[in-house]
Amino acid sequence: MQLSQRVLGTEYSPIRKFRPLVLEAEARGIRALHLNIGQPDIETPRPFFDAVNAYKNRVIGYAPSDGVADFVQAMIHYYKGLGVALDHNDLLTTYGGSEALQIAFSCMLDEGDEVLVPEPYYPNYNTFVRMAGGVIRGIPTRAEDGYRFATREQIEPHITPRTRALLVANPGNPTGVVLTPEERQTLIDIAREHDIFLISDEVYRELVYDGEPISTMLQHTGADENIVVIDSVSKRFSATGTRVGALISRNGELMHNAMKLCQGRLSVATLDQVGAAALFESLGSDYYEKLRAEYHRRRDAVVSALREIPGAQFDVPEGAFYMMVRLPVDDTESLQRFLLEEFSDHGETVMFAPGSGFYADPDEGRQEIRIAYVSNCDQLRRSVELLKLGVAAYQKKMGIPAQVNAVPLACAC
Amino acid sequence: MQLSQRVLGTEYSPIRKFRPLVLEAEARGIRALHLNIGQPDIETPRPFFDAVNAYKNRVIGYAPSDGVADFVQAMIHYYKGLGVALDHNDLLTTYGGSEALQIAFSCMLDEGDEVLVPEPYYPNYNTFVRMAGGVIRGIPTRAEDGYRFATREQIEPHITPRTRALLVANPGNPTGVVLTPEERQTLIDIAREHDIFLISDEVYRELVYDGEPISTMLQHTGADENIVVIDSVSKRFSATGTRVGALISRNGELMHNAMKLCQGRLSVATLDQVGAAALFESLGSDYYEKLRAEYHRRRDAVVSALREIPGAQFDVPEGAFYMMVRLPVDDTESLQRFLLEEFSDHGETVMFAPGSGFYADPDEGRQEIRIAYVSNCDQLRRSVELLKLGVAAYQKKMGIPAQVNAVPLACAC
Repeated sequence: MQLSQRVLGTEYSPIRKFRPLVLEAEARGIRALHLNIGQPDIETPRPFFDAVNAYKNRVIGYAPSDGVADFVQAMIHYYKGLGVALDHNDLLTTYGGSEALQIAFSCMLDEGDEVLVPEPYYPNYNTFVRMAGGVIRGIPTRAEDGYRFATREQIEPHITPRTRALLVANPGNPTGVVLTPEERQTLIDIAREHDIFLISDEVYRELVYDGEPISTMLQHTGADENIVVIDSVSKRFSATGTRVGALISRNGELMHNAMKLCQGRLSVATLDQVGAAALFESLGSDYYEKLRAEYHRRRDAVVSALREIPGAQFDVPEGAFYMMVRLPVDDTESLQRFLLEEFSDHGETVMFAPGSGFYADPDEGRQEIRIAYVSNCDQLRRSVELLKLGVAAYQKKMGIPAQVNAVPLACAC
Repeated sequence: MQLSQRVLGTEYSPIRKFRPLVLEAEARGIRALHLNIGQPDIETPRPFFDAVNAYKNRVIGYAPSDGVADFVQAMIHYYKGLGVALDHNDLLTTYGGSEALQIAFSCMLDEGDEVLVPEPYYPNYNTFVRMAGGVIRGIPTRAEDGYRFATREQIEPHITPRTRALLVANPGNPTGVVLTPEERQTLIDIAREHDIFLISDEVYRELVYDGEPISTMLQHTGADENIVVIDSVSKRFSATGTRVGALISRNGELMHNAMKLCQGRLSVATLDQVGAAALFESLGSDYYEKLRAEYHRRRDAVVSALREIPGAQFDVPEGAFYMMVRLPVDDTESLQRFLLEEFSDHGETVMFAPGSGFYADPDEGRQEIRIAYVSNCDQLRRSVELLKLGVAAYQKKMGIPAQVNAVPLACAC
């Protein structure tokens, strides 16, 4: 039987594809510490469990296709706190940010249509865009410029008649870049002038560390038809396994059509929405402040530890809980395989996400890795120590001199 | 901004699209009884809630992309009970049967590829196939033949070089048809000879009422590459809002590619899988026997009540909890609008799913409706009474003589 060219053209997640090697390593008694996956170890707040346990309906029935009313109201209330007035019709509840993206692309893309995305980008964007029939065109950025991308000079040359959307993650996964208000406005102006959608993936909204105000693209006026926001409870509430998110836009025609797709798949899991609504209702700025402070500490811990790796290059990330690091090796996929198959220190090794999966051209990013700083500071320090030891062992095995490619970054750390 | 031709070509769910009129009716103090939607009123069994409440992990983290191990093991064990040996790699956990279908179509279809489906069919098949770039070709059936379709004569003339899959629901939604072993074998032979997938949607597997053994297409040997089964806990455990299902196939290449899509959307909600695993682990044939007996009673109640509607034509459904009924009116969409906007009896009216949405050609099925017999017998009787009164009122308003088109069905009831 023939499979679709579309699915054959997608790749395994570069973040998850080494799982079989991890299982083999575990079978040999080696424990792998995870810098690769955005799974925080912070507890999901109690209100989630309390609301789920207090659920009184004895039938777990379908939720409305657009979401459980309490959840939708809780989100509308939350956005009001950001100065954004939303109507019920502006929001559709989805299976996490992932499904919000899938629905958005399905509504926007026909075969061969293009989505512009600054590189490096979250690899699953590629899967979602491809499965909707589209292709990603990368906006090149430079590690030396801190991966910033939001200028007309960088973006406009890549717009073609097939461009349907500009997709950005803010705060950025994998770069940690946080857009300035002026940069956001530039993106909006470009989207409006070129009559394309601006999809803003804001699932890390609260995680900014250098005093930036909490922002959303929806605060900007005059481009209601263009702006589409992706949201999720996963990272904000350390509840990635709840799979509750939202597609938000004031473009009525888009939302009307997106609702058809929501009806098609019936509904998002009911209890998870009940729990998520309770999280929004019971947690406010105090909670976010504490969460931010904790990730701030983790960021600082991982940055300090990385400074101990000779030849490692990176910028201090401003937001989310990811960062890109360039390592003094030839190929980080090969390094990862080595770390899982041949390396260990006191029975431990370490995983990261190899950088090439974050670029449209797989030849790019081969010296880079993405780190997720989601575990506690002690474990982060140990993970980076393992990375340091592993890089040295790999360099020795491969005959790579230490400190190759030590190009200093603009904002040296 | 331009939306995709693909999404513009999809329709609102015919089962859910009258919801705005229902809200208006409710605002006028009219209560609508639901024969339209497959939401059972039977309680979700306690083991689901007990397992969810006993969940000890304080972080609701991502599940593995292929499913929580306990859930996958529980399903493998369940299939063993049907005489089917499955390997972990043969099964991917999905957001209900809906996502299993979406993933299957995404793996099989490129732009313009065709899926053969006997008519009438579950309308969301159309949304899923279209969004994967494909088109549905209907296999015509006749109410007079009890909507049976599984013969070479009916199917093979519709196979073209673009046909990638034959999709059947067994037991059937909306027809209630249950395939005989010989019919299943015919479908398998056709799929194998024409080198196409046979997708068997078996989410109503346990709901058969005339002594048929519980069956799955996976029991048939010799066509492992062709057979794909869609499963779900929704109907079996009266837990539609849990959104946990599975894509099952022994076609390794298909499952390998489907896993890429599962990784893309990360995972299915964790707690729901924990609850669903407990349901499979604690409930066995006694439970299914009771469930079947209850729906058997409901089927008989709805059939008896329908016999009181002059000119209504239908077969006694063999399985699932749906049936098609032909009513003595010109257009059942128009009837539904009348029932919500102009009709009530003691403050009540009734909803069904108009038949045209279940056909590829919207001009077909205009005299038909789909009934879901999911509420208790008293409510079912009252719902059908409302339908009877409503049909009479509509006929009077429209000047339709009672008993038009009273073509007797082969198996008259």
